[in-house]
Amino acid sequence: MAGMAAMTMPCVSRFFASPCLRPALRGHSAGDCIRVGNSIKHRVPKLGVRTMRAQASPRVVEDELQGYWQHVHICNAGRERQVEFLPFVLEDSKIGYIHPRFLKHLRRFPEVFTVNDDGTNGMSQGWVTLHELLRSPRERTDAVESVLRTLEMEGLVPGWRNEHYPVVTSFGGRLLFTLERAAVPFFGTRAYGVHMNGYVQVDGEKHLWVAKRSATKQTYPGMLDHLVAGGQSVGISCKENLIKECDEEAAIPAALATRAISVGAVSYEQIKGEAFKRDVLFCYDLELPADFQPSNKDGEVESFELLPVNEVAEVIRTSQRYKPNCALVVIDFLFRHGIIHPDQPGYLHLLQNLRSGECQ
Amino acid sequence: MAGMAAMTMPCVSRFFASPCLRPALRGHSAGDCIRVGNSIKHRVPKLGVRTMRAQASPRVVEDELQGYWQHVHICNAGRERQVEFLPFVLEDSKIGYIHPRFLKHLRRFPEVFTVNDDGTNGMSQGWVTLHELLRSPRERTDAVESVLRTLEMEGLVPGWRNEHYPVVTSFGGRLLFTLERAAVPFFGTRAYGVHMNGYVQVDGEKHLWVAKRSATKQTYPGMLDHLVAGGQSVGISCKENLIKECDEEAAIPAALATRAISVGAVSYEQIKGEAFKRDVLFCYDLELPADFQPSNKDGEVESFELLPVNEVAEVIRTSQRYKPNCALVVIDFLFRHGIIHPDQPGYLHLLQNLRSGECQ
Repeated sequence: MAGMAAMTMPCVSRFFASPCLRPALRGHSAGDCIRVGNSIKHRVPKLGVRTMRAQASPRVVEDELQGYWQHVHICNAGRERQVEFLPFVLEDSKIGYIHPRFLKHLRRFPEVFTVNDDGTNGMSQGWVTLHELLRSPRERTDAVESVLRTLEMEGLVPGWRNEHYPVVTSFGGRLLFTLERAAVPFFGTRAYGVHMNGYVQVDGEKHLWVAKRSATKQTYPGMLDHLVAGGQSVGISCKENLIKECDEEAAIPAALATRAISVGAVSYEQIKGEAFKRDVLFCYDLELPADFQPSNKDGEVESFELLPVNEVAEVIRTSQRYKPNCALVVIDFLFRHGIIHPDQPGYLHLLQNLRSGECQ
Repeated sequence: MAGMAAMTMPCVSRFFASPCLRPALRGHSAGDCIRVGNSIKHRVPKLGVRTMRAQASPRVVEDELQGYWQHVHICNAGRERQVEFLPFVLEDSKIGYIHPRFLKHLRRFPEVFTVNDDGTNGMSQGWVTLHELLRSPRERTDAVESVLRTLEMEGLVPGWRNEHYPVVTSFGGRLLFTLERAAVPFFGTRAYGVHMNGYVQVDGEKHLWVAKRSATKQTYPGMLDHLVAGGQSVGISCKENLIKECDEEAAIPAALATRAISVGAVSYEQIKGEAFKRDVLFCYDLELPADFQPSNKDGEVESFELLPVNEVAEVIRTSQRYKPNCALVVIDFLFRHGIIHPDQPGYLHLLQNLRSGECQ
């Protein structure tokens, strides 16, 4: 069975000679690597010393799925604080959540935001909506944008992206209005993205392309990624967006990118300060030719490496080198390609929790 | 995009000359088929007259995912009646549900079943457990089996299978006891199965093997199935079980069956009379060589046919020819192979509801 196949860890990259990620993958510099019998002892950041298995024969480990959970937990951190937030309601649907501290700023614009509470900023008392005169998506978008521009200048909405995200009750449903990407977590509206694993079959074994994020990237610098990802803005289909991102992030030509197959979705909900992230990531797989070499155009990726899928699984299980939400997308790949399988205790529990966030 | 590819409907099977399923697939005899322009008008049982699309160019239909929902609804029929059932509890975990009418029979065996209620058979009052002296899995299994043998002779547990299903709080967890398969729905304990789609790549297009169930089969005679399925008994791993079923149901040799890949799970909960089915189906994909021809050994399948995946999707969308729970497994395949894709409204809602039942 695939998931019980022996895992071997070659010390040199078998496929190309570009900067080797392996030391980074293992969370240590090459010199820290100490071989002890069949296992490699190494330091993993934040998780202390762990033993990475490298045995030659199949072995069932009781908690073999345990290591995957760290990523689910990180992606869903702070959810217990949801009670602090006020529901953001539009057209009788709860479309988001706003923290009282952020709401304080919105109260300055009563012509845009209507707050239904007792005025005490009490925890999860009342609800927020848009002013009733703002009826069309255009009117709502413009009014909210104008408020956000003011708050941005006051430093209250950092990281402005100039990207408009759809606000909907369900993906593909009627657009209620659009919201600047940087502001989405402050409104707790759902955000969508497209995420793609690129893989290659070599001698019957699947290998995954692993990207190392640029050291200068604003978010999660130097961490590991799957091959391609992007937020889902308005005015573009998921597939078109994916093809665009394939070009920008990995120089995958459109004729090849169009072969990517949608395979499902993962979701999570995370609260940090006043930000409530409620993300749904549409997952794609693309089988690439063995001789294809990705290269980055937009400066967001430092390097790429092709690794046996079992080795990627081991990195995810035993370290926090992957950007957490991308780890979920890779874990989803491991489920769909039989690396994680039903004969491993805890299979269903982990499978369910890859979609911890409300999927709408 | 795969899901938007033109669907063509050749009138003859392209791959082999065994008894053609197509009339059965379309829910009518060949003579009923009337070609009208680009579409085929035909009668579909229970759903009235429908038009099966056969257009040559991509078209987005607003409710194009709507047809898949019928199978989700059928599999989850009667769930609103859950309140009628009493929880079946063991070792502080709710492991099942028992209807008061079936409980009446169990009350005759107070040395095996302990009922905690007011004795009035009230709706969802109290709870049921096993007698506290029954401590080991062996003791519990023997005591329950003895009761069930008596009830079976009285005609109260029809369809005895001589197959023991595990009773667990979560799959792969500690075994609490085992239960005759025929009795499982009367106790509302979770049942597990392995279900496999067999597919072939022909000229870059995926084709699915479709089985037609024997007309003499006890359950769902003459309906359509994916290639292989079986209940998950105790004492055998999922993969071993799948390999066994591959042999019995489709004469797939073990060397080939072992290449099957686990890909996830679907689940549903259905109430009919006193029976509460809570099923979790582990899904597998097996890519078969183009020249492989399945054949049935156990008499449960009348015939097999290989059909383009888009055509199978259309059958599922527009008819009730598929055994309902197998339809879910095929829909899961359609999600994972990009036939159903995120640019279709309602994608996430349908995806979530493929696992409507508690997945544990």
